[in-house]
Amino acid sequence: MRKSEVEDGEGGLGGDDPAAMERAFEEMHVPPWKDQITFRAMFTSLVLSIVFNVIVCKLNLSTGVIPSLNVAAGLLGFAAVKAWTVMIEKCGLLKQPFTRQENTVIQTCVVASSGIAFSSGTASYLLAMSPITASQAETGNTPNNVKQLRLGWMIAFVFAVMILKYKLTYPSGTATAYLINSFHTPKGAKIAKKQVWVLFKAFVGSFLWAFFQWFFAAADGCGFSSFPTFGLQAYNRRFYFDFSSTYVGVGMICPYMVNISLLIGAIISWGIMWPVIESKKGHWYSADIPGNSLHGIQGYRVFLAIAMILGDGLYQVVYMAALTLSSFMQQLVHRNESEDEREGDSVEDYNESRRTEYFLKDQIPNRVAIGGYIVLALISLFVVPHIFPQLKWYQILVAYVIAPVLAFCNAYGCGLTDWSLASNYGKLAILVFSSWVGLQQGGVLAGLASCGVMMSIVSTASDLMQDFKTGYLTLSSPRSMFVSQVLGTAMGCVLSPLVFWFFYKAYNVGDPEGTFPAPYALMYRGIALLGVEGFSSLPDNCLMLAIGCFVAAVLINVLTVVLRKWESKYRIYRIIPSPMCMAIPFYLGGYFAIDMCVGSLILFVWQMNNKKQASELSPAVASGLICGDSLWGIPAAILALAGVSPPICMKFLGAAANKRVDSILGG
Amino acid sequence: MRKSEVEDGEGGLGGDDPAAMERAFEEMHVPPWKDQITFRAMFTSLVLSIVFNVIVCKLNLSTGVIPSLNVAAGLLGFAAVKAWTVMIEKCGLLKQPFTRQENTVIQTCVVASSGIAFSSGTASYLLAMSPITASQAETGNTPNNVKQLRLGWMIAFVFAVMILKYKLTYPSGTATAYLINSFHTPKGAKIAKKQVWVLFKAFVGSFLWAFFQWFFAAADGCGFSSFPTFGLQAYNRRFYFDFSSTYVGVGMICPYMVNISLLIGAIISWGIMWPVIESKKGHWYSADIPGNSLHGIQGYRVFLAIAMILGDGLYQVVYMAALTLSSFMQQLVHRNESEDEREGDSVEDYNESRRTEYFLKDQIPNRVAIGGYIVLALISLFVVPHIFPQLKWYQILVAYVIAPVLAFCNAYGCGLTDWSLASNYGKLAILVFSSWVGLQQGGVLAGLASCGVMMSIVSTASDLMQDFKTGYLTLSSPRSMFVSQVLGTAMGCVLSPLVFWFFYKAYNVGDPEGTFPAPYALMYRGIALLGVEGFSSLPDNCLMLAIGCFVAAVLINVLTVVLRKWESKYRIYRIIPSPMCMAIPFYLGGYFAIDMCVGSLILFVWQMNNKKQASELSPAVASGLICGDSLWGIPAAILALAGVSPPICMKFLGAAANKRVDSILGG
Repeated sequence: MRKSEVEDGEGGLGGDDPAAMERAFEEMHVPPWKDQITFRAMFTSLVLSIVFNVIVCKLNLSTGVIPSLNVAAGLLGFAAVKAWTVMIEKCGLLKQPFTRQENTVIQTCVVASSGIAFSSGTASYLLAMSPITASQAETGNTPNNVKQLRLGWMIAFVFAVMILKYKLTYPSGTATAYLINSFHTPKGAKIAKKQVWVLFKAFVGSFLWAFFQWFFAAADGCGFSSFPTFGLQAYNRRFYFDFSSTYVGVGMICPYMVNISLLIGAIISWGIMWPVIESKKGHWYSADIPGNSLHGIQGYRVFLAIAMILGDGLYQVVYMAALTLSSFMQQLVHRNESEDEREGDSVEDYNESRRTEYFLKDQIPNRVAIGGYIVLALISLFVVPHIFPQLKWYQILVAYVIAPVLAFCNAYGCGLTDWSLASNYGKLAILVFSSWVGLQQGGVLAGLASCGVMMSIVSTASDLMQDFKTGYLTLSSPRSMFVSQVLGTAMGCVLSPLVFWFFYKAYNVGDPEGTFPAPYALMYRGIALLGVEGFSSLPDNCLMLAIGCFVAAVLINVLTVVLRKWESKYRIYRIIPSPMCMAIPFYLGGYFAIDMCVGSLILFVWQMNNKKQASELSPAVASGLICGDSLWGIPAAILALAGVSPPICMKFLGAAANKRVDSILGG
Repeated sequence: MRKSEVEDGEGGLGGDDPAAMERAFEEMHVPPWKDQITFRAMFTSLVLSIVFNVIVCKLNLSTGVIPSLNVAAGLLGFAAVKAWTVMIEKCGLLKQPFTRQENTVIQTCVVASSGIAFSSGTASYLLAMSPITASQAETGNTPNNVKQLRLGWMIAFVFAVMILKYKLTYPSGTATAYLINSFHTPKGAKIAKKQVWVLFKAFVGSFLWAFFQWFFAAADGCGFSSFPTFGLQAYNRRFYFDFSSTYVGVGMICPYMVNISLLIGAIISWGIMWPVIESKKGHWYSADIPGNSLHGIQGYRVFLAIAMILGDGLYQVVYMAALTLSSFMQQLVHRNESEDEREGDSVEDYNESRRTEYFLKDQIPNRVAIGGYIVLALISLFVVPHIFPQLKWYQILVAYVIAPVLAFCNAYGCGLTDWSLASNYGKLAILVFSSWVGLQQGGVLAGLASCGVMMSIVSTASDLMQDFKTGYLTLSSPRSMFVSQVLGTAMGCVLSPLVFWFFYKAYNVGDPEGTFPAPYALMYRGIALLGVEGFSSLPDNCLMLAIGCFVAAVLINVLTVVLRKWESKYRIYRIIPSPMCMAIPFYLGGYFAIDMCVGSLILFVWQMNNKKQASELSPAVASGLICGDSLWGIPAAILALAGVSPPICMKFLGAAANKRVDSILGG
């Protein structure tokens, strides 16, 4: 669900004539790159990194749906440093004004660090190695294919694969730069102040709401998160509004179609398919299998979701490769033409030349990049087999040889479509490597570990590209960007496993019925099982249905492309759901989709009433909701670790059960 | 708590230059009085009467706090007839345009009819006669002092005492006329449309919310109305937010000080006094008395509340009498002077003369008024002793002789201060008549019945005065006003007992722990018991404390008056709580005070953000909240009568109880 991380609602933020942007900053001094990395910037980055690691970890473990937190990071970074400098200025101690380059450094560092929380795979491929997840998928539950999670090797592994964060000094883009630029223009500063204030209010409200909810959740099945909003029947089919302001906020950031796709997926799966399959219980699968075994109903849920995700992913990879190739060809042919066309557009040109000047000044030489890659590959070749004896050094070498090609494809494709497919490449890596190693040699673990290696290399390239674009547009030096990226990565590599460990110890992570089901852990393990065992492990008819899902995913994609090209009147392609999004609720159920649709609804009503205000403030509100609710996670986890449980259970009983309870409690 | 019915938040509605009002209507034809009472107006009145009877009945039975519903009645009447005429006009069938006189007629009729719901005393003195209430107060629980409620005699009694609705063609005022006038000016019509729309949205939202809440209230102690918002400890002391949008709306209409007084009363009583008294259990009162007996803790609650209410009431009566007398004297002396002063103010004069012209045209002659009163007194003399043999004809005669004097005092005082003391006169009547008749002869019933007679005569005069003011200001004929008043009264006399009967049959009305504790029923019976038994029936130290409360109530009032006169700098008198308001939560607890304070808070924040919008729209929102939530009462009561109970119980259990329940349900 990385998709929504790039396809987000930031559009309205850079609205004030970006063409003339650099004119506004002409008089401003651009500090040398070393002065862009200030202590205050690094300190702010560290604090925000912790915050965002907690948020991303919580999101990862609960549904795996992670919206773009760039706006939130930008706003919070701006608010923190601004507050600090204003305070210091009032004391007469300010030496250096707060520049937009500094802001970009913070932003880059925080995004890099919280990006690790996602790509380190603590909630997906690492957790997939754990005994908890293995026990649900029985087949591969052998010592060879299970690794007890330990903080030490997790940090080492994450470091080994994540220190690859560099390469490809690639100028392309995100909207974040516009955001940061806009903070530093006079008009923008006013809007930013408003946004920060709104974010703060939403943050406090959301935090207090989460705090309030806590009191009523004395045990599992208690509290607002088990609120049978649409009745107990619907609750049992996981259709309910769980009052999570996080996912309402996520829904406000994600595009409407993502939320609607999720809801459609939930309705198709939990509303139609699972009830039908459950009615075959005893025929298609044994009736006395525990509810969370992959050989029972859970297997259908996981493997159909995997099929859909793989179908979508594979289609995207092929499509993107074709697109990249054709665009690459075209560019080679038309390079000179397009440069001629550019002349005469003086404003554009001024921005461009000033930006290019600052950007090229500190460019990282190619040989350093390539040299670094080789050194790191060598380190990985040594470290990774040490952690995972199942994975041989030559297999890692293969990964490191193939990866740059895929990384280039992905980075280029991402530059074209704003859509990173890193996790798809990771999934393919699981399939390939786990079947290469085989079940007896610990192929499940090997596949999962190689997924980590592959995903980090591939995603790094496109992430970095985004950040360099940001730096390029704010006249931040690529060197300072690089340094902050490296520092952010280092922070992330330590923080991400730490934060995960915190949750892992405090809660029953991975329990399919609990607060943190960590859906991707089981899915990734499922993919690895497919790799080692083929389709023999699937329950009856599951293969048929999975093929159906796979084909459906491809067909939906083809349909979208065809409609986009040939049907421009009603633009129906806009209302075709995304197969990737539809697949997520297959396993989880519809509750978070409902939260997110509530977010969409709020945004929709807001846009109806005041379009300008909505586009200006809704990302701030959404960020506040997400941050506030997620941050309550820290005290809540501390309380859980300390063994303090909430005082009240808000329980939902059917009328009959209630009578029994009343008679018992009364007597 | 009749206070808030007149002291309400309507101020902002008549804001557009009332002085020039009549100029705007100069061209408009004023229809003759018979044409003001149209069929559509009467039909609308009937429908709205039912609606408001339900609302008032529900409010009466749950807390007895009734805000002014004049704005709601005005808006709904306007919306209904406007919608109807617009629809008819589009079909080309409209014969008569919608005039403000017609609007006034509807308003008057609805207010008259729903006023009966209050003053008919179904929830106070009539319910106080019932065996349910009597059983809580043991002492007077003899056949002679208890009367089984029956629909027949209730309607007869209500008719007998309520048909007195006329007399005193007294021009004085309310703000309602400004409201209605404002609907019919072009600018006002725009605001009114906005208000109607806002009211509609709040109405629908509140109705749906009540509907949603229903599903979770499978049994007593389930659902949102038992939500331990501040924890189970606070819940047991009746401090919680019960998610009732009715009382949030009521809080938005009532002045801030009313809500804060309620909260202070709740904190003093349930937070401090009751815990202290309960700690004396076994010493001050026997430990094995049932919880709802007036000889136990309930007795302290009821009698201290009564003491406070009587203290406040008695003070008000005395103060008002003094004020009335002095103002009356002054007026006699200065009459000519003030008339001289008036001249020259031509706009004021134009309004005045045109209004007076229309008003005097159809004035009701004095002899008709007096004749009518005598006829009705004779009817009552015959009917009331027939229903209540405990009350002798000469006692009723005494009531009818004293009443006009008190009524005049009250009406005049109300004209001065906008504060009707009718229910205070009623309580005094209970004391006087019950002690006159004595316990053996059924003094409790006699006192309660005489309260009905007295209250209706006294309140009628001041209510009518308000309505005539409205009519006077909208150029409605006093005759049409009179007729609509009579029709409204007739409707009310039938509807009020019917609606009450409906609730009485559907719910466990009068149960102190239930949804409809009907607090005034027990209080009125308590007053009657004081009358027949003196203070001998009170538990230990209750008399002392009651005297303390009585004195405190008087002192607080004196203090307010003194401060109002002598301390004008900080105007501290504004933040002195009202004893009457403080007394209500003595019996009920703080939950509805918290609802109302939430309403205050909403209004306060709204006023901070947008003062104009808040004053324009908050009464509409509040009315919508009240109407929507209360109207759900009808389907809910029907479902309850049909034996359909909600499917889910939202239960709140302590952590320990929850473990027991889980082990039982799991096993």
